[in-house]
Amino acid sequence: MTTRFRARVSYDGTSYAGWQIQPAHATVQGEMEKAIRFLTGGHVRVYCSGRTDQGVHGRGQVVHFDLAGEWTASKLLRGLNAKLPEDIRVEALRRAPADFDARFSATGKEYRYFIWDGPVMPACFRLYKVHVRRRLDVSAMNAAAAHLAGRHDFASFSANPNREVDGTVRTLRSLRVKRTADGVAIVARGDGFLYKMVRSLAGFLIRVGLGDLAPEDAPAILKARKRTATVPTAPPQGLFLWKVSYSSRRFGNEHRS
Amino acid sequence: MTTRFRARVSYDGTSYAGWQIQPAHATVQGEMEKAIRFLTGGHVRVYCSGRTDQGVHGRGQVVHFDLAGEWTASKLLRGLNAKLPEDIRVEALRRAPADFDARFSATGKEYRYFIWDGPVMPACFRLYKVHVRRRLDVSAMNAAAAHLAGRHDFASFSANPNREVDGTVRTLRSLRVKRTADGVAIVARGDGFLYKMVRSLAGFLIRVGLGDLAPEDAPAILKARKRTATVPTAPPQGLFLWKVSYSSRRFGNEHRS
Repeated sequence: MTTRFRARVSYDGTSYAGWQIQPAHATVQGEMEKAIRFLTGGHVRVYCSGRTDQGVHGRGQVVHFDLAGEWTASKLLRGLNAKLPEDIRVEALRRAPADFDARFSATGKEYRYFIWDGPVMPACFRLYKVHVRRRLDVSAMNAAAAHLAGRHDFASFSANPNREVDGTVRTLRSLRVKRTADGVAIVARGDGFLYKMVRSLAGFLIRVGLGDLAPEDAPAILKARKRTATVPTAPPQGLFLWKVSYSSRRFGNEHRS
Repeated sequence: MTTRFRARVSYDGTSYAGWQIQPAHATVQGEMEKAIRFLTGGHVRVYCSGRTDQGVHGRGQVVHFDLAGEWTASKLLRGLNAKLPEDIRVEALRRAPADFDARFSATGKEYRYFIWDGPVMPACFRLYKVHVRRRLDVSAMNAAAAHLAGRHDFASFSANPNREVDGTVRTLRSLRVKRTADGVAIVARGDGFLYKMVRSLAGFLIRVGLGDLAPEDAPAILKARKRTATVPTAPPQGLFLWKVSYSSRRFGNEHRS
């Protein structure tokens, strides 16, 4: 008899070889499974909404796992955080229906990509933003983003379109660029994302912001359905998996435990 | 023949034993003097607007130093950043009048203290905010802050009032607490600050925000002019030296080089 738990997890990707467990490297999944092993003595697999690559951060990653025995959500949350390193935190945890799946039940995801566009990168931003030396034209970036939002074949924005088992058509519900006091943020919301799609969108938008490409180049790049050097993959440390959405009718709303 | 330079510097205090040079520990001053030695071959002393303690961050620290030889500001800025570790950055640099002194010419300083008030500290905030588990009452904190703003004897808010050679009266031009999407920020502006004064103000305001002390306790604490356990020193990682002001008539406005 096991109980399924669902957790919202944040992590600083700086020190990890990404989400997925690997033999010789520290990974977020590896640390979470180790913490559960400390608490329960058993090996438990932790499933996430979508793997993040080396150096990418989690702000609102969602995971699920099954535990035997009697665990209250609040005791389990405290126990996990006591065993996990401080750069991985379980921010919320609760029981979930047996058919809740962090990946397959997700109805949408939000990623954010952060950029500092100035001559020198402020010291305390270096781990969580990407540095672009010249000031970005945010209006041009938003004009380009408007061409990309919607349902399209995003093969030109995937690192490996042939690997995608579900094809390369996705719905980008919104793609917006905004300037804040702390630089520039790209916010991408969609029903699902291809491998390295957000970093490819960011790489393209940064080139537009620098004036190397025009917003009007976007439709032709989409239409080509082929990855080329025109679209670079922006570096990982600017990327945060920000939020994962689920049907609140079926799985309830997120809350802190 | 030497030229005086003035620089605006940001640093992540996490890995440093504070500003001031020490024999066996990495310090911000030590790293800056080492970078200058790499570039110029000579030993040059770097003076700052005010030392920061171990673990405290710099967002807009200002320094001055004198160099012999021909250096353009832009070449020096690039050279220093090439030699400095990434957690110390020279964000702006320019020639300054020979009587410019980062410390004694300063007319005001702004510090900011950042807090996350929730059950779990998000992973990527851990190095730059302090964690308070319960939600803070920001209105109460601002009511307390209103008692502290102005010209007062702040001996009760100094870690070592007897050590202060200029006495313990300072003008706190403003002290404000605001809630943002990323937690709570305390902003303190003044003509000068005593040793550990901002962390003491933060420690007191946090106790008020938690309901352990009342805003109306502030006048009596000020009046006592004696440090007691009522006022704790808040931890260093929440504190940023945010900005240092100088007379723009005498020394010009800050700009990037």
